[in-house]
Amino acid sequence: MSDENLQVLLARRPTGWVEAADLRLHSAPIPEPADGEVLVRNLWLSLDPYMRGRMSDAKSYAEPVALGAVMVGGTAGEVLRSRHPDFRAGDKVVGMLGWQLYGCAPGKALAKVDASRVPLQAYLGTLGMPGVTAWYGLNRICEPRPGETVVVTAASGAVGSVVGQIAKARGCRVVGVAGGPAKCRYVTDELGFDACVDYKAGQLGADLRAALGEGFDCLFENVGGEIFDRLLALARPFARIALCGTISDYNATEPYPMRNVRAVLVSRLKLQGFIVSDHMECWPQALGELAALAVAGKLRWRESVAEGLASAPQAFIGMLRGENFGKQLVRLG
Amino acid sequence: MSDENLQVLLARRPTGWVEAADLRLHSAPIPEPADGEVLVRNLWLSLDPYMRGRMSDAKSYAEPVALGAVMVGGTAGEVLRSRHPDFRAGDKVVGMLGWQLYGCAPGKALAKVDASRVPLQAYLGTLGMPGVTAWYGLNRICEPRPGETVVVTAASGAVGSVVGQIAKARGCRVVGVAGGPAKCRYVTDELGFDACVDYKAGQLGADLRAALGEGFDCLFENVGGEIFDRLLALARPFARIALCGTISDYNATEPYPMRNVRAVLVSRLKLQGFIVSDHMECWPQALGELAALAVAGKLRWRESVAEGLASAPQAFIGMLRGENFGKQLVRLG
Repeated sequence: MSDENLQVLLARRPTGWVEAADLRLHSAPIPEPADGEVLVRNLWLSLDPYMRGRMSDAKSYAEPVALGAVMVGGTAGEVLRSRHPDFRAGDKVVGMLGWQLYGCAPGKALAKVDASRVPLQAYLGTLGMPGVTAWYGLNRICEPRPGETVVVTAASGAVGSVVGQIAKARGCRVVGVAGGPAKCRYVTDELGFDACVDYKAGQLGADLRAALGEGFDCLFENVGGEIFDRLLALARPFARIALCGTISDYNATEPYPMRNVRAVLVSRLKLQGFIVSDHMECWPQALGELAALAVAGKLRWRESVAEGLASAPQAFIGMLRGENFGKQLVRLG
Repeated sequence: MSDENLQVLLARRPTGWVEAADLRLHSAPIPEPADGEVLVRNLWLSLDPYMRGRMSDAKSYAEPVALGAVMVGGTAGEVLRSRHPDFRAGDKVVGMLGWQLYGCAPGKALAKVDASRVPLQAYLGTLGMPGVTAWYGLNRICEPRPGETVVVTAASGAVGSVVGQIAKARGCRVVGVAGGPAKCRYVTDELGFDACVDYKAGQLGADLRAALGEGFDCLFENVGGEIFDRLLALARPFARIALCGTISDYNATEPYPMRNVRAVLVSRLKLQGFIVSDHMECWPQALGELAALAVAGKLRWRESVAEGLASAPQAFIGMLRGENFGKQLVRLG
C-alpha cells in the first residue's frame, strides 16, 4: 500500500468541450476512516456522461462539484480498514468515492458485492447504475409490449446496450442508433438488436426512416439534439419516450433548437425525463432481474478500459466524443 | 323552414394564416335523413383551434377536410325529422354536423341534451368538448395536489378558463397567461385565478418569473411556441405538463425552435400530449363533474358570439389571432 492518494480535482469549469486543463492531478495523504466509516482502496472508476453536468454550475438536478474538489464518480474497490460493523478488510464494495485511489465513506454509502461470479467492475456497468438506469427507463416509462418497436440511442453504450437487450428479451423489435460501422455491427451482431442506424453515415434522416418503417412505440433517448428531434417526427401514436440523457448537448454552448416538439401533441406522446437516483426503491428489483438475465447469458456488454488514474481525464474527454466502445472504465489497481 | 342549406366549404388549403378566400359559402339542398339518421337544424356552431389543423394536409391526428367539403365542427341544434327511435322532432342535440345550417347524422353520433337549466350553447363549451378537454388534461395528466402551482396558457379561452377554475376548486394556486389587460383582468377578477401574465406586455420572461416565483408543478399548455419554451425553464422538479394545443404554431410556416427541452431531463418532467376524443370513456364522468361545478356556481364562462353562418370565417380567423374573448360561437338560428 502506497502512502499517496492520487486524486483528480476539478480545476476550472469547462465551457463547451472539456479540456485536459479543466482537470488536475493531485496528491494527498490517504485518509483515516472516522467512526462508522470505511477506508476503501478503489480498483475501478466508472466514467459516465452525467459527470459533465457536475462540472458546470448551470442549473441541473444535482449540485456541481466545487472548484478544487475531487471529481465525483462511482467506484468499485476493496475495504482496507473498517470502523463500521458491517464491513471488514478484503470486502469488495461499490460506492461513490470519486476520482481517487483511496477514499473513506460511511458504511451506509457503500454496498458489498459478490465478485466471485461476475467481474467486480460489472457492478459499475450492467449490474450497477447504468444497468438500473436502463431497467428503470424501459420498464417504468416506456413500458414496451411484445411486438412493439423500441429505439435506443447511444445503443452500444453502457445504458443503451442493456436497454436493447432487455427489450429483445421481452419480444420487441429493437433498433439502435450508434456512431460508426464497428459500433453498429456490434449492436446487431453481438447484442442482437434487429437493426442499427449509424448516425455518422451522413444520411441520418433517410436511414432512420428506413430502419423504422412504421415508426416506433418506445424511445430510450440518451443523445438529444438532432437525433432526438428527427426521431420525434417518427413516433407512432401514443409512443412513450424516456429521456435519460442529452449527451450531444453537454458540450454545446447553445442548446439544439428542437423543431418537432409538436409531435408530442399530434401523436399524443408521453415524454418523461428521469434520473435513476430518484428511484432507489427500484434498485433491488432491477439488479435482481439484470443478474438473472446475465446468468442466463442474455446480457452481454463490452468495456473500454483506461489504465491508471492519470489517464482518466483523456478517457473522459474521449467518452464525451463517443470514442469509447461500451462501458468506459478506469483501472486503478 | 327555409329550403336552402347554407354551408361553408374548404376552398383551398391555407399556408400560414387563414384567409377569407380559403373558405367559401355554398348553398345546397336540405338533406334527407336515411333510415337510422336524424335531420338537425343547427342553432349554434362551435369554432375551435383544432379546425386549423383539419384545413391542412400535414400529418396530424385526424384526416384533413377534403377540398370542397363542408368544414368540420361541433354543433348544437334541434331535431327536425327523425328516422331513429331514440330521437323525435324538437329534441335538442349536439353533434359534429359542421359549418352548415342543416345536417343529417346517425342517431349514435348525436347526444340529446337538456337545455332547460343551462343555455344550449354551453354544451359546445364548458359542458362540452372544451370542458372535457380541460377536465381530462388536468385530472389525468397534470394530477395537481392541493397547494401546488398550476399554470394555464390561453387562460381566458374555452378550455383554459375551465382548467383554472377546476384547479382553484381543488386548492391549487393558479396562474394564467393571456393576451392583453382586459383578458388578464377577467382571468383574475371573474375567474378567480391568483395571477395572470399578459404575454403581450413586452416583458414575458420577467413577468413569468415574477408570477411563478418558485416555479410551477403543473402546466396546461394551449399555446406552444415561445411561451411554452420559456415556461419549460420554470418547471419545478417532477412537474407534469399536459400539451393540449400549440395555437401559436398553427399559422406559422416554420415551427418555433424550442431551446429548453433539456428541462424535461434536468427537472424530470412528464410532458404528455392528448386529444380528448381519444378518451370518450371519460366524458360521462367529466361532464357530470363539470355540471355539478356549474350548478354550484363555481364555473363561469364567457362567450364571443358571431351572428350568422356567413360571419363564421371572419370569426374563425379572429379566434386564431386571439381576438375572441372566451368561447367562440356562431349563432345560426
